[in-house]
Amino acid sequence: MNARPTSESVPAEQVFDWLDAEAARRAEAGLTRKLRPRGASTAELDLAGNDYLGLARDKRVAGAAAAATLRWGTGSTGSRLVTGSTELHAELEHELARFCGVQAALVFSSGFLANVAAVTALSGAESAIVTDKYIHASLIEGCRLSRSDVAAVAHADPAAVGHALATRRKARALVVTDSVFSVDGDLAPLTELSAVSREHGAALLVDDAHGFGVLGEGGRGAVHAAGLSAEPDVVTTITLSKALGAQGGAVLGPRRVIRHLVETARSFIFDTGLAPASAAAAVAALGVLKTEPHLPAKVLASATRLADLLREEGFAVSAPRSAVISVRTPSASGAVGWAERCAEGGIRVGCFRPPSVPDGVSRLRLTVHAGLTESDVDTAVKVISEAAPPGATS
Amino acid sequence: MNARPTSESVPAEQVFDWLDAEAARRAEAGLTRKLRPRGASTAELDLAGNDYLGLARDKRVAGAAAAATLRWGTGSTGSRLVTGSTELHAELEHELARFCGVQAALVFSSGFLANVAAVTALSGAESAIVTDKYIHASLIEGCRLSRSDVAAVAHADPAAVGHALATRRKARALVVTDSVFSVDGDLAPLTELSAVSREHGAALLVDDAHGFGVLGEGGRGAVHAAGLSAEPDVVTTITLSKALGAQGGAVLGPRRVIRHLVETARSFIFDTGLAPASAAAAVAALGVLKTEPHLPAKVLASATRLADLLREEGFAVSAPRSAVISVRTPSASGAVGWAERCAEGGIRVGCFRPPSVPDGVSRLRLTVHAGLTESDVDTAVKVISEAAPPGATS
Repeated sequence: MNARPTSESVPAEQVFDWLDAEAARRAEAGLTRKLRPRGASTAELDLAGNDYLGLARDKRVAGAAAAATLRWGTGSTGSRLVTGSTELHAELEHELARFCGVQAALVFSSGFLANVAAVTALSGAESAIVTDKYIHASLIEGCRLSRSDVAAVAHADPAAVGHALATRRKARALVVTDSVFSVDGDLAPLTELSAVSREHGAALLVDDAHGFGVLGEGGRGAVHAAGLSAEPDVVTTITLSKALGAQGGAVLGPRRVIRHLVETARSFIFDTGLAPASAAAAVAALGVLKTEPHLPAKVLASATRLADLLREEGFAVSAPRSAVISVRTPSASGAVGWAERCAEGGIRVGCFRPPSVPDGVSRLRLTVHAGLTESDVDTAVKVISEAAPPGATS
Repeated sequence: MNARPTSESVPAEQVFDWLDAEAARRAEAGLTRKLRPRGASTAELDLAGNDYLGLARDKRVAGAAAAATLRWGTGSTGSRLVTGSTELHAELEHELARFCGVQAALVFSSGFLANVAAVTALSGAESAIVTDKYIHASLIEGCRLSRSDVAAVAHADPAAVGHALATRRKARALVVTDSVFSVDGDLAPLTELSAVSREHGAALLVDDAHGFGVLGEGGRGAVHAAGLSAEPDVVTTITLSKALGAQGGAVLGPRRVIRHLVETARSFIFDTGLAPASAAAAVAALGVLKTEPHLPAKVLASATRLADLLREEGFAVSAPRSAVISVRTPSASGAVGWAERCAEGGIRVGCFRPPSVPDGVSRLRLTVHAGLTESDVDTAVKVISEAAPPGATS
């Protein structure tokens, strides 16, 4: 923190030398990350993506997106408050709100920006924020931008939330949680969190990114399943890029919350609107979900089968409560090798290492989708087992 | 700042009452904002959008996007490091880097997130950041997230940047500016900013969102025009949603900068990849720009004609240096009425009010695109003049 004479000239070629030093440190810790662009083939079994209902490849959805591109153009051409709101965006917002039983919805170009908007616009310097310590990175960025007093409390612990609310120093308060935590797929105790928030006069913001389309009646999500979606003090965020197979995100809630976001949320006002193709894809995917309300149950059945069989093999598997399960690995580098051997065996799996795992424990992260057959799951278990590093089973 | 007993119960219906109070305050100040979804018709003359080359409606671009949707699906299905990188993303990154003469490029789902990533990943607690005080909101969010010492200095003032760099308390430093400022369309003194950054051992980050596709040789942007794109201490961000008519953004720069973003930038790692349709649209739009390198000059010619004619009518018009010009308005509510009367006359214009204007002065914001004819511009000037509120001319 001392002032030091730092302004001397550095050769331009050396200005970014520190990046190489940091890369070397990451490599030493087994934390190097590389992009691996995939082809259009779907020959591999996908246990890594978030296309939980398989709708990203659905012909009805793709056809609607292609038609919208030809009719509306490839971009929204501006921010939502200037030229970036089309009737397609309005239709999507109307349909999302109706499906989930909320007053209103607002669509964003990404779920990340929807979360940043919801947190920042509903908090501020006059607010306290109390979060589960395992919330998604985008919610954490929102908290950092909020200028609120932020308390991150124990995971899935309503009593800890209550204590933080009771001892806060600000009049207003916002409780923030994921519904389905993205690493292990475990669920937040939404009923209890709502009760404790209400007891202390706090609003509740739930990121239902991994719940929407998978949990609840016909895929209406975890907030709807808890009977909370229409509550006047509850706000939900979802993504269009997971179960709906498109791109973007949305905030769902009371009409006055949506109006407030339109008028004040910087990550809404200063961003270009979602591309028409993605809005149309989301509308079409929602239509498919409405006509095929059994799809979400297929996802949960596959998750349960996959978790049960892997546990029988001796792996440390998270409980199957959603489309996401995880398998603990002995080390970060062990996780990378395991995932690579799975890929060689035709199974694409996720590999989560620090800093993407909140507790520092590396994992294989497995996701299931509605298109998996029982035989697909059996194949996956066989490949994953054969590819396992020493020490992965107990 | 005093602790107060704040935890008493508030009825759930009243938790968001403060939003209504804030809405009432905005209404009183003439700062209400409303979404106005537009139809698919292109009958209106668009002087509000950012589709500067008219490529969002180009059949070659839309055709490529539609074909990509059918081939690749409607979503990228995951974050870029899991399943969200396709060969299309890699092709787009390769083509962008080659076009702009940089070592590497990285594509984001929005320009907002690209800016947040570039600022946060290239700064940190060990860094100072010096910014022009009129930079885009997304860069400001990046600064707020950076944990750096941040100094926002006078607009377009290299000497002020130099002073802030010379008196900084951190070894590392990052200078941040827009190339084309989005409200008035004026240009940053990039050559001088690069010189002063280099003199003080700082890196330079330039948001070329409104310059790319419009300025420089064949639309290579303002950073390329200044001869800086290949410099080892310069990083550029662009959008795919303006001149390229698609959605998303990108960071361009030295290979080690791009690797660093892939491995550390939270708004890259924790966001779903750009939809294939948008990546394909951007590739196709870049192809059109390469075969029609005269398009950018048409944009600047229209901007000059529009500004000259409006100035002749007595309006306070910014200098035409890009696709964006602005006309000062006597008041925020006067600006709204003016824009509404323009729309009734068949001309869509932007209306920028606080907090979207850095100096608090409301403006009509006019953008031009390559498809405008001289007669379109004449029509626009006639409608804008007839719709002007009292006090708009000097």
